[in-house]
Amino acid sequence: MCGIIGYCGPKPTAKVLLEGLRRLEYRGYDSAGIATIKDAELTVIKKTGKINDLASVVPASLDGQYGIGHTRWATHGAVNDVNAHPHVSQNGKIAIVHNGIIENFASLKETLEERGYRFVSDTDTEVLAHLVEDFYEGDLEEAVKRALSLVKGTYGLLCICTEEPNTIIGARNGSPLVIGVGDGEMFLASDVTAILGHTRQVVYLEDNEVVKVSSEDFTTTDIRNTPISKKIENITWELEEIEKGKYPHYMLKEIFEQPESVKRAMQGRLDEEYATAHLGGLNMSTRELLEIEQVVIIGAGTSYYAGMLGAYMIENLARIPATTELSSEIRYRNPIVKRNTLYFAVSQSGETADTLYALRELKRKGGKVLGICNVVGSSIARESDGGVYIHSGPEIAVASTKAFTSQITAFYLFALLMARMRDLSFEDGLILLRGMKELPDRINAVLKQSEHIKHLAEKYSYARNFLFLGRGLNYPVALEGALKLKEVSYIHAEGYSAAEIKHGPIALINPDTPSMFIVPRDELRDKVITNMKEVKSRGGKVIALCTEGDNGVRQIADDTIEVPEVNRYLNPFLMVVPLQLFAYYMAIKLGRDVDQPRNLAKSVTVE
Amino acid sequence: MCGIIGYCGPKPTAKVLLEGLRRLEYRGYDSAGIATIKDAELTVIKKTGKINDLASVVPASLDGQYGIGHTRWATHGAVNDVNAHPHVSQNGKIAIVHNGIIENFASLKETLEERGYRFVSDTDTEVLAHLVEDFYEGDLEEAVKRALSLVKGTYGLLCICTEEPNTIIGARNGSPLVIGVGDGEMFLASDVTAILGHTRQVVYLEDNEVVKVSSEDFTTTDIRNTPISKKIENITWELEEIEKGKYPHYMLKEIFEQPESVKRAMQGRLDEEYATAHLGGLNMSTRELLEIEQVVIIGAGTSYYAGMLGAYMIENLARIPATTELSSEIRYRNPIVKRNTLYFAVSQSGETADTLYALRELKRKGGKVLGICNVVGSSIARESDGGVYIHSGPEIAVASTKAFTSQITAFYLFALLMARMRDLSFEDGLILLRGMKELPDRINAVLKQSEHIKHLAEKYSYARNFLFLGRGLNYPVALEGALKLKEVSYIHAEGYSAAEIKHGPIALINPDTPSMFIVPRDELRDKVITNMKEVKSRGGKVIALCTEGDNGVRQIADDTIEVPEVNRYLNPFLMVVPLQLFAYYMAIKLGRDVDQPRNLAKSVTVE
Repeated sequence: MCGIIGYCGPKPTAKVLLEGLRRLEYRGYDSAGIATIKDAELTVIKKTGKINDLASVVPASLDGQYGIGHTRWATHGAVNDVNAHPHVSQNGKIAIVHNGIIENFASLKETLEERGYRFVSDTDTEVLAHLVEDFYEGDLEEAVKRALSLVKGTYGLLCICTEEPNTIIGARNGSPLVIGVGDGEMFLASDVTAILGHTRQVVYLEDNEVVKVSSEDFTTTDIRNTPISKKIENITWELEEIEKGKYPHYMLKEIFEQPESVKRAMQGRLDEEYATAHLGGLNMSTRELLEIEQVVIIGAGTSYYAGMLGAYMIENLARIPATTELSSEIRYRNPIVKRNTLYFAVSQSGETADTLYALRELKRKGGKVLGICNVVGSSIARESDGGVYIHSGPEIAVASTKAFTSQITAFYLFALLMARMRDLSFEDGLILLRGMKELPDRINAVLKQSEHIKHLAEKYSYARNFLFLGRGLNYPVALEGALKLKEVSYIHAEGYSAAEIKHGPIALINPDTPSMFIVPRDELRDKVITNMKEVKSRGGKVIALCTEGDNGVRQIADDTIEVPEVNRYLNPFLMVVPLQLFAYYMAIKLGRDVDQPRNLAKSVTVE
Repeated sequence: MCGIIGYCGPKPTAKVLLEGLRRLEYRGYDSAGIATIKDAELTVIKKTGKINDLASVVPASLDGQYGIGHTRWATHGAVNDVNAHPHVSQNGKIAIVHNGIIENFASLKETLEERGYRFVSDTDTEVLAHLVEDFYEGDLEEAVKRALSLVKGTYGLLCICTEEPNTIIGARNGSPLVIGVGDGEMFLASDVTAILGHTRQVVYLEDNEVVKVSSEDFTTTDIRNTPISKKIENITWELEEIEKGKYPHYMLKEIFEQPESVKRAMQGRLDEEYATAHLGGLNMSTRELLEIEQVVIIGAGTSYYAGMLGAYMIENLARIPATTELSSEIRYRNPIVKRNTLYFAVSQSGETADTLYALRELKRKGGKVLGICNVVGSSIARESDGGVYIHSGPEIAVASTKAFTSQITAFYLFALLMARMRDLSFEDGLILLRGMKELPDRINAVLKQSEHIKHLAEKYSYARNFLFLGRGLNYPVALEGALKLKEVSYIHAEGYSAAEIKHGPIALINPDTPSMFIVPRDELRDKVITNMKEVKSRGGKVIALCTEGDNGVRQIADDTIEVPEVNRYLNPFLMVVPLQLFAYYMAIKLGRDVDQPRNLAKSVTVE
């Protein structure tokens, strides 16, 4: 969350910054701003709202030789122009943009106020601007390092100064920062998507590293001035992958990409000869895999729900006890880490702060942690002991869709691998494997029903509250479906195990609060039908997501969405897609900003 | 859920039945009905709504020599007069009331229709009435047994027939049934509270037992006619415990009983000499307790949230890995049961079907299961290997309050016991023990703020949606607080770990959706404050439940409720009480039926 960009080079600086911010907008869109310097003169323009609001107040004449920009997801202080970044030092010479949280900002602020600094904003970032000014003695890099030595917290930051032409200082601790190496120009950004239109040569900074950039060159050191040599990497994404193409929204594009993205997640990983999966990135010998006695999966939001499904698959298929924990909870729970427990950290961006810190806590205790990430080279991918890249391609919509189905593909493959090392027969393994191979076609069949789902979303758009109900493997799907609807339509949707509603939540049922039941033809179908009847008895409306041609369900439900029959472990894949579409069309019907829903941001890099 | 009553004796039958149903009303109040027989003439009166609605249509002149009654929580078929119990056989001679679910009712119905029976209701119960008629050859008990031999499902049922004077047949499988033995009169009920005003001599039926009752006598057999001799037990509850006394509602009475009920839950269980707890009912040697390597707690609704807290206490204090599972989920998950894993089944009534069946599944696999129950002699208490009675006294309000604080008292004591057998020092044990001793006084201090809490409930009664947010030990408290508000006020309140909202749910925040933060002065306080600021940044209103005198919280929150400082493991006790009161006063303000909220029922005895 929050996006930052810096540019040093011959192109029109303001234009490059605004273009970069547009690519970063999904990381936060409470407010935005840019600061440019031309001939030792600093210009700062900030605006509440989206990048277009900012662009509308940037004069066409504005230019600069170098500059920085920021798009904000508010943590400290309300959403307004004053709290927008960049923040400027008291003498007006230094500008700074910052992603992260300065935890000791209150005490730093007090000290600075005693030294005569006056604060204009409520942000934690402003202390950094004044602190750098306070330390500045003709060397910006030195001043930044001295300021950061006093800071407790996380940051990805960029800093410029009117007295240092052609110079941007960047620093990273806990929030990502990447250098884009151009030909006679240099970029800095929180995320490669911001610079992919200009260069494919990038350098990822690590925690506690500082970079000094000019249009020609960059030098990296650690915070104690030790030089660090960095490797230039080559980005293999295509620019079109981060553009919407024919779709009106990224969310819809990414939903429709799922036959492809699921295929990529399994590509080269299916072994028909032994009816198992290959997952080379795990970095574990078969002996080590054999010794696993327990699996614990951590994640946040959608990744947590993917983990719940993963735990179910691993426990049921491989008969290894598996549980899921919220990253934010396990970290502060003083977790008990045991030998032969394997941990998975699930995060699309690989930068989710809650998950990253939990991973570190588990590793500190000697835990073996694998990552399930989308972004190659991300913090979690690098700090884990190995893992599975899901190769979904860039996910830009704030509400995660294709990452979820690819995450559960990774777990399905891992469960198959572990099960085939244990009690699962070749024949049963082959059934699971072939089911997975056919999955992209099945997802395509579901996507063909988008018009029907759109119609249902419109039919039920009167509802301000919704329950999503499933059991077993489809309980996490219910949770994920409710989360999607919440995120993009702002309808208060809540997911429950269908059996749980009679223990309280059924009090919410009335004709204005419909229920979405996930009820495939599996061993729990009859139980879920009983729960559906309980809701119908109370006058609640029921939409049922069921297996094609299930007349028993059709007789009870007000409406159905029907998906092809697959093995029970694949049902969640087919069930979640209609829920994503339902949320999308509901948001459209209600006039929401689908790709950038209010209050949210992609890639939550603060705790 | 559902309540049933039967009476055979000289008193006015209709009056006794209606009085019993009033005591049972909290078990279900969709509809109610009675059937009485006088001189071989059957009278059936049924009515949608509560017992008062039924009583208003029962003529004062109605009398009978014996009869049965029922208060319904609908599972099959809508709520209406026709679907209300009792159900009558086609020839009009047999009446039946039934609690539970007949799973194979569809096929039985088909067979009966082929044999010429016509159905008038949509219930599963009606098949029983016709089936008993079909088998009746002059012996009602025999006919009932033959009918039940074809039934798949659960039942607590009573049956009468015009041709058999002074006779009620009762049968139990999965739904509780108790015989009340009077002097020249006999009672049958699903729950002792219904008959406590008449007799204290009771006999609990077990699954697959059938009883034949007359005003003078009863005989018990199993379904294959083997005689079974039963023990008469003596009820020690006082009638006043199940009356409201000076309080307008049971819920308020039970909230205010908590200093006493928590004291009862710890009584005789604190050992100052060794700074530990005594829990004799566990039926486990110290050696067995020492060998526990893992704890898994199962429950539903409020009991599940108590279990989450219990797991946290056990894991943190005793350093034994502990997790919680929904009863309804674990049962169908093919759970892996390991040697040295200890299970707890938590249920106030001890009759919760989801939990009872999960317990049986775990025991079948060789698992050791302890119960944490309130109702002495309940199914879970009897079928578990031991456990802890919480001694809260009867809990009548449908929304559980005092049972929750007593359940977590039991876990606190168990965690202390296990911790003191492991790494916890005498001194630290003593601090925990003394904290517990002082807890009733601290709860009293919180209850004194009820006027302030009432004021806040009224102030925020405009809200149709609410978030409840806490972390660590107070995350389950947030879930429980949200459940209470849902249950009695029908406001859509949802609980989350405070850190999770930025991963999606924060999209719901606007000025009309307030957040209740639980933020005691503990090691997570500063993190929760950051989450509070995120909500405030988006214009959300914040009520903070914090430790007395916390100025940092006061500065941010719109309103605070402040509770005394206690050790961190006791915070949840003090935090949940204001949430109970908040839910109660909100429901009053909104004109809800607090003790019998819509769609709900106490003691969920169906899956």
